[in-house]
Amino acid sequence: MRTVADLGEFGLIDRIARRTGVAPARGVTLGIGDDAALLRVRKGFELAVSTDTLVEDVHFRLANQAPRTLGRRALRINLSDLAAMGARPLAFTLALALPADLPIPIVDGLVAGLVFESRAFEIPWVGGNVTRARELSLSITVMGEVERGRALRRDGLAVGDRLFVTGALGGAALALARAERGLARLTRLPEPRIAAGRALLRGGICSACLDLSDGLAGDLRHLTRASGVGAEIELSRLPLARGLERGAAALGLDAQAMAVRGGEDYELLFGVGAARRVTERGLTRSLGTAVTEIGHVTGTGRIAGLGSARGHRHF
Amino acid sequence: MRTVADLGEFGLIDRIARRTGVAPARGVTLGIGDDAALLRVRKGFELAVSTDTLVEDVHFRLANQAPRTLGRRALRINLSDLAAMGARPLAFTLALALPADLPIPIVDGLVAGLVFESRAFEIPWVGGNVTRARELSLSITVMGEVERGRALRRDGLAVGDRLFVTGALGGAALALARAERGLARLTRLPEPRIAAGRALLRGGICSACLDLSDGLAGDLRHLTRASGVGAEIELSRLPLARGLERGAAALGLDAQAMAVRGGEDYELLFGVGAARRVTERGLTRSLGTAVTEIGHVTGTGRIAGLGSARGHRHF
Repeated sequence: MRTVADLGEFGLIDRIARRTGVAPARGVTLGIGDDAALLRVRKGFELAVSTDTLVEDVHFRLANQAPRTLGRRALRINLSDLAAMGARPLAFTLALALPADLPIPIVDGLVAGLVFESRAFEIPWVGGNVTRARELSLSITVMGEVERGRALRRDGLAVGDRLFVTGALGGAALALARAERGLARLTRLPEPRIAAGRALLRGGICSACLDLSDGLAGDLRHLTRASGVGAEIELSRLPLARGLERGAAALGLDAQAMAVRGGEDYELLFGVGAARRVTERGLTRSLGTAVTEIGHVTGTGRIAGLGSARGHRHF
Repeated sequence: MRTVADLGEFGLIDRIARRTGVAPARGVTLGIGDDAALLRVRKGFELAVSTDTLVEDVHFRLANQAPRTLGRRALRINLSDLAAMGARPLAFTLALALPADLPIPIVDGLVAGLVFESRAFEIPWVGGNVTRARELSLSITVMGEVERGRALRRDGLAVGDRLFVTGALGGAALALARAERGLARLTRLPEPRIAAGRALLRGGICSACLDLSDGLAGDLRHLTRASGVGAEIELSRLPLARGLERGAAALGLDAQAMAVRGGEDYELLFGVGAARRVTERGLTRSLGTAVTEIGHVTGTGRIAGLGSARGHRHF
């Protein structure tokens, strides 16, 4: 089978550039092929920029998911960071490191997945680089634009704020547990809550926000630390992913623990000031996705209601 | 010795964030620690963005250079891409992948090198991520701002344009050859030609520009292809790095071949319209660095004067 080594660095770049297309995009003056891409940020907006990396055998295994799925997932995970800021996608770059003996169809699948999501989320692929490495990895830098001074930051929580999450929790952990046991391919994709983030920003009711990448327990700690506060969660209120209880039981796992500690759900966790008259139902309607109230902010500096659960660690 | 595994992912991020400092910087609304950084691009400017990666045992060896040098080199290489666009540095992010058993002093050295250049070139470190991997790699995304519609692109060469390079060639290849033979540590650093790029942009005389990362032969091909032209180079005019001829001879290597094919000099190669009355001396004064005329643009579509020399390949 032909491999990356047969294409060479520039052959590979040409191959990718042909697939990304050259459709002119709003905000992009110059795309792939020069020393840098050129982007325009509209007046009254600022640029949100975030970088995240997926490494073979750390964040994914080629054995249990299609390369196209991996490409789609990689971009969606990064888009989730823009969603958590309330930003609109503008452009992305990819640093792709790959072994010289990687079969070309794997690269093609990856690229197809990235291109698919690039179009779906209207975020043009404007540059990056490819390099040889011992293991496959994708580092994506996403850029978005957000109204000046209005981005959804982590550090705005106040005591008494109510805490909400979008969607449901634990679904990613269950899918991963199944894939690791060889029971199913990993096909589940996170849903970057771009529209919900934009709606939160427009609504002006959100005191702080982040996306759940490391699991509710760990990320809640990040959120409360940034504001120097604590939180109390009502475990029984957590929105469990559909089929999680049955699926977890079948594997001998605890559904609630998966919802609390499982990473990669990429739902938004956000605070709303106590004085705001919002309801789950109203938020669900305005954000375009299910919203659940799960607890509130306290002045203790600690997280109560989650037991000793912690997020997962990469090292 | 303590390793990265002892710190954990968030311990490592905290350690880095403490060293990057929190000095407010022009253009940066929000730095490390949130889901994304926030940057402001001034009115009348557009954003230049470029990503480049260094991988252990592909682009560097820890055995022959100090971690601090590696950190400095990594940022300088990326800054060179901004220089080639005529952009002013604005901010950068780092995707750092590292083995769990990497000693902490190596990470500290890397970070110290990055922080040093971040200050020297006034390009704040605004975010990124760390992840475990089998080999050490650094993917940097640099962002700069450049006057709208005035960036130095690759695709503006016209037949008859004169071709110039800044600085001297072959110095990086010689340093690398010495290091690979175990004769010296790799201490040489490329000089990102930020000021020269800004001067070229302000002067309005530059028809096309790139930075020499893969070697003159290969990069000249990239430049002429982007404009659909050819070029003729006068080999005898190439500015050889100081000590290159003696150094190359001592290793049994050919100095001219190193100047033509050696990569990583990171000098600017640019075109100037035939009608412009510029001299090497005048350009040297206005760019603040030595400038040498090395040939001109032809309509042949081919490169003449360099023999069969090609740039180096990563695969």
